Amino acid sequence: MTERIHHFLETRRPEGPCLVVDLDVVRANYQAFATCLPDARVFYAIKANPAPEILSLLAGLGSCFDAASVPEIEMALAAGATPDRISYGNTIKKEADIARAYQMGITLFAFDAREELEKIARVAPGARVFCRILFDCEGAEWPLSRKFGCEPEMAVELMVYAHALGLRAYGISFHVGSQQSDVGSYDRALEHVAEIFQALSEKGIDLSMVNMGGGFPARYLRDIPDVDSYARAISDALHRHFRNRMPETIIEPGRGMVGNAGILQAEVVLISRKSSRPDELRWVYLDIGKFGGLAETMGEAIRYPIHTPRDGAELAPCVLAGPTCDSADVLYEHTPYPLPVSLEIGDKVLIGSAGAYTTTYSAVAFNGFPPLQAFYI
Amino acid sequence: MTERIHHFLETRRPEGPCLVVDLDVVRANYQAFATCLPDARVFYAIKANPAPEILSLLAGLGSCFDAASVPEIEMALAAGATPDRISYGNTIKKEADIARAYQMGITLFAFDAREELEKIARVAPGARVFCRILFDCEGAEWPLSRKFGCEPEMAVELMVYAHALGLRAYGISFHVGSQQSDVGSYDRALEHVAEIFQALSEKGIDLSMVNMGGGFPARYLRDIPDVDSYARAISDALHRHFRNRMPETIIEPGRGMVGNAGILQAEVVLISRKSSRPDELRWVYLDIGKFGGLAETMGEAIRYPIHTPRDGAELAPCVLAGPTCDSADVLYEHTPYPLPVSLEIGDKVLIGSAGAYTTTYSAVAFNGFPPLQAFYI
Repeated sequence: MTERIHHFLETRRPEGPCLVVDLDVVRANYQAFATCLPDARVFYAIKANPAPEILSLLAGLGSCFDAASVPEIEMALAAGATPDRISYGNTIKKEADIARAYQMGITLFAFDAREELEKIARVAPGARVFCRILFDCEGAEWPLSRKFGCEPEMAVELMVYAHALGLRAYGISFHVGSQQSDVGSYDRALEHVAEIFQALSEKGIDLSMVNMGGGFPARYLRDIPDVDSYARAISDALHRHFRNRMPETIIEPGRGMVGNAGILQAEVVLISRKSSRPDELRWVYLDIGKFGGLAETMGEAIRYPIHTPRDGAELAPCVLAGPTCDSADVLYEHTPYPLPVSLEIGDKVLIGSAGAYTTTYSAVAFNGFPPLQAFYI
Repeated sequence: MTERIHHFLETRRPEGPCLVVDLDVVRANYQAFATCLPDARVFYAIKANPAPEILSLLAGLGSCFDAASVPEIEMALAAGATPDRISYGNTIKKEADIARAYQMGITLFAFDAREELEKIARVAPGARVFCRILFDCEGAEWPLSRKFGCEPEMAVELMVYAHALGLRAYGISFHVGSQQSDVGSYDRALEHVAEIFQALSEKGIDLSMVNMGGGFPARYLRDIPDVDSYARAISDALHRHFRNRMPETIIEPGRGMVGNAGILQAEVVLISRKSSRPDELRWVYLDIGKFGGLAETMGEAIRYPIHTPRDGAELAPCVLAGPTCDSADVLYEHTPYPLPVSLEIGDKVLIGSAGAYTTTYSAVAFNGFPPLQAFYI
């Protein structure tokens, strides 16, 4: 909670649930990445929060952008980024969208499959391509599925094929998993990547770039290593595995750039019990839930810090739920959330580290509730 | 798949993923409910699909409406429903929203807690209230959590309290769970409800109404009992438990009213494998996923029927995923989905029974993708 957000909420008193993002925190986060990893180019993962205010700020600071779709490319361009600073980082693209991106000047594309390379070769001739590899995400709070990436051996074959198709075999990307707190995971991933570089070099193909993806954590309830610890681990691992042939490097922070910059204000709509048994847990219902922006509570994956006006009072575990008529709209039930026993209907609560993956996950109008409103200050 | 939807897709050839709803099917569904359950009033659960075309059609046919929020009440009024035909069926309401609903003429409110009754008594004096009870949803494909409802004994106490607060203790509601295929579940629920009626009658409070909620299934992949089977089971159970003191009855179909009326057209964006091992499953990526409208694949709960232009060809299991950069955007992985081996990138696929809980679950702009477009014909 920053002083600026506190002041905004006190003076503006917005109606209904809302996210407030402090752009000074985003700026400080960008500068921390740029300072700690001076040799890496920062490609902000737009999907984490595509607010024009954030994109313009980052474009002005010199950031590059990782776009997941044509509309995200258009947003980055509108914010002032030139096409050479934008990567089309989604491995799943329609051929028509690749063509549109190429027409807008984008020349850097992600892929993880032969079929995707063929699309790129057809409509974006000569483009630079990087191959996403699968990586075991041990240590991540939210390990990724096998949805993105291919096995490293396949990456070598695909890069040879890219070269044959007239594309520029440019680099390798990996992702250590969201909320990765094991800084050593970069070392393990970079060892695989260096092997791919070596194997391709022996075939006469010299890759240029390593894209280390995102995964830099935001602080929710648990302490996390700071950017500096990641930076040192990454720098050490790069030197260990690439020695005097250091590649160009890219990082794609999303959550790590904007997560801790946002506070979500919500209201307690109802507090009740299901029976008069003394062991019955309280149910606390907020005016925001899984379909209003807190989708990342899915499987209780992300556990947000929650502050109430009664902090300091005695705590008791609660089931926490959203306001919709959907029975799946429950935030924390498996592991109940401790909240003050004196909490009351109408109290405003502050949900911390809510700057990433909230506004855009919000449903258009589920149960008639409007999408999450947001303020960027 | 109706002839009208087929014709629409053939002639209009919409770009991008879209839902097409055949209003004739909605009309037929309404008439089936009205015919099979002539004594029950139908309150359409607006949240299933709040399209103005659907609401106007149903208002014209004489349907009543179950609203989850003030915006849904406004939509029902705009569609031509009078306030006496609208129930504010969400048990979780802000006091200010209850007041707004009451000002718009709404006099029927759901609750499941003492605290909610107090809000209603303060701002909607004299309103009719019905208490939602918890019910064990055995037999439902998607059993409900304990989010809504209170234990039956508590319902008796709360109704006495409602009466003391000057509210009209009007009825009891329950919900047998979504996609309930055990028609006998109504009998078990109505037994509890009849006991509550009896207990309150002995205290001088005569309830008038039983709200049997929704849960009427849409046909996805498995066969389901038809409306007629439900109607007979409900009618028998009502007579068994209420004999010659039959209450007014309400049903709240949502999925059962619009689910089978809609077809979602999507496109295959990518088909790939993660390695060259022969046992490696194909991954099929569509241009719609969990965040574009197919949220109900969460936990692989709803298994949609999918038709392809290659139906009839040899099938092989696939992992099916959406187009976003979110690793959670995978539709079927735990139980892979059989699709034709000859399926190709660019093929259009038709996802059946998609009329309910798709458009409104769609994210505002996740990954820059626009919300699901829909056509009502």
